[in-house]
Amino acid sequence: MSISTPGEHLTSLEELRGALRRFASDRDWDQFHSPKNLAIALSVEAAELLEHFQWIPEADSAVLNPDQHTKVREEIADVLLYLIRLADKLNIDLLAAAADKIQVNATKYPLDKARGSSKKYTEF
Amino acid sequence: MSISTPGEHLTSLEELRGALRRFASDRDWDQFHSPKNLAIALSVEAAELLEHFQWIPEADSAVLNPDQHTKVREEIADVLLYLIRLADKLNIDLLAAAADKIQVNATKYPLDKARGSSKKYTEF
Amino acid sequence: MSISTPGEHLTSLEELRGALRRFASDRDWDQFHSPKNLAIALSVEAAELLEHFQWIPEADSAVLNPDQHTKVREEIADVLLYLIRLADKLNIDLLAAAADKIQVNATKYPLDKARGSSKKYTEF
Amino acid sequence: MSISTPGEHLTSLEELRGALRRFASDRDWDQFHSPKNLAIALSVEAAELLEHFQWIPEADSAVLNPDQHTKVREEIADVLLYLIRLADKLNIDLLAAAADKIQVNATKYPLDKARGSSKKYTEF
Repeated sequence: MSISTPGEHLTSLEELRGALRRFASDRDWDQFHSPKNLAIALSVEAAELLEHFQWIPEADSAVLNPDQHTKVREEIADVLLYLIRLADKLNIDLLAAAADKIQVNATKYPLDKARGSSKKYTEF
Repeated sequence: MSISTPGEHLTSLEELRGALRRFASDRDWDQFHSPKNLAIALSVEAAELLEHFQWIPEADSAVLNPDQHTKVREEIADVLLYLIRLADKLNIDLLAAAADKIQVNATKYPLDKARGSSKKYTEF
Repeated sequence: MSISTPGEHLTSLEELRGALRRFASDRDWDQFHSPKNLAIALSVEAAELLEHFQWIPEADSAVLNPDQHTKVREEIADVLLYLIRLADKLNIDLLAAAADKIQVNATKYPLDKARGSSKKYTEF
Repeated sequence: MSISTPGEHLTSLEELRGALRRFASDRDWDQFHSPKNLAIALSVEAAELLEHFQWIPEADSAVLNPDQHTKVREEIADVLLYLIRLADKLNIDLLAAAADKIQVNATKYPLDKARGSSKKYTEF
């Protein structure tokens, strides 16, 4: 992820957040962007992403053809955009929240217990 | 989003990606992390996030109490972590994908047609 | 629900189950219908249903226009069809499972505590 | 599905619908049951159902252990209960809607084209 090129447009979460603010503001869409509605939209986009994988075998899901890959890339982008927007509306720092959660998970799934097991893992 | 403090741990999507790789590798979890399974997990986490908003009025969703805010922040983190992991497995650059999608949306929702309307917007 | 007209086609869950069995068998689709895949499909359909409500105010969701109503009716049907199919594959009696769950809920949400509150209700 | 025992309680969709009406009415929960909120709840329950399958291999999903089976049965029941409730609020006859949709699908997926293929099927 090329977030190392300062000055360039939209190469960080902060820049994306700013672009989404302008996008909504320019279209007078803030009225629709309650956290509740954004959480719905995020969930719907996550399902659209999942839809691309629903009938294919697990092994095939790692080797998408170019057309599938392009579509999946777009859906992944949609999920990120709504996630950035929702976090912005709730004043949540996405990177800090994720870093904190990794710490929580490290405690929750200690190496000796978690290795090779998806048992407890279902609660990740 | 404090992505401007170089040297610190986990302050960029790239660092989070690296941490998640180590996390899975250390626990021998790559066997579970097919894109199909990660897309399922992402969708499940998005629903857990949505669950916090399901019975509250739209207006209240912008003013969560501290306990709700903490839980929502954790769920948002989970969604981001799975999104980073899925994108990694599919060699997708999250920031570039999101920047491209904003361009697509700008064309799809021109200012004059989209202003104040959620009509076409339902297909965003 | 007109399940009272015996002899007519597809007027009960059992008849729908039978029709779906033939539908899948005729198309050689049982190979795709693992419970895991059906649970994914069910979740995707539930999200497509939800999509119709995502940007409309809560109050408006009770007064859909005819076009919206038709589309929502189709999505509701899709959810039921996958639910019947999944239950069939797992040998689960849908009506008995639902009747049992209502009993569980009655114990979980006693009248005196639950009245007018959506608090505990979030775990329904 | 034992819907053939008239007189017994909750052995049809109609009886379940009636029981759910009383359940909500007794608890003054109709205020929360807008179609929008019910569609959210349905989607959340579908994800909770899916969660049970997220890390298990597709083949294993057909042979759940008794504990998993019990939990999956409960989640399936929750999905059906919210589906009945949502259909009720929108005056939709679940069985008729499902029967109609099977007809639509039969036209959409003609035998000669659909056999053994999950291609077009992704739009089912």
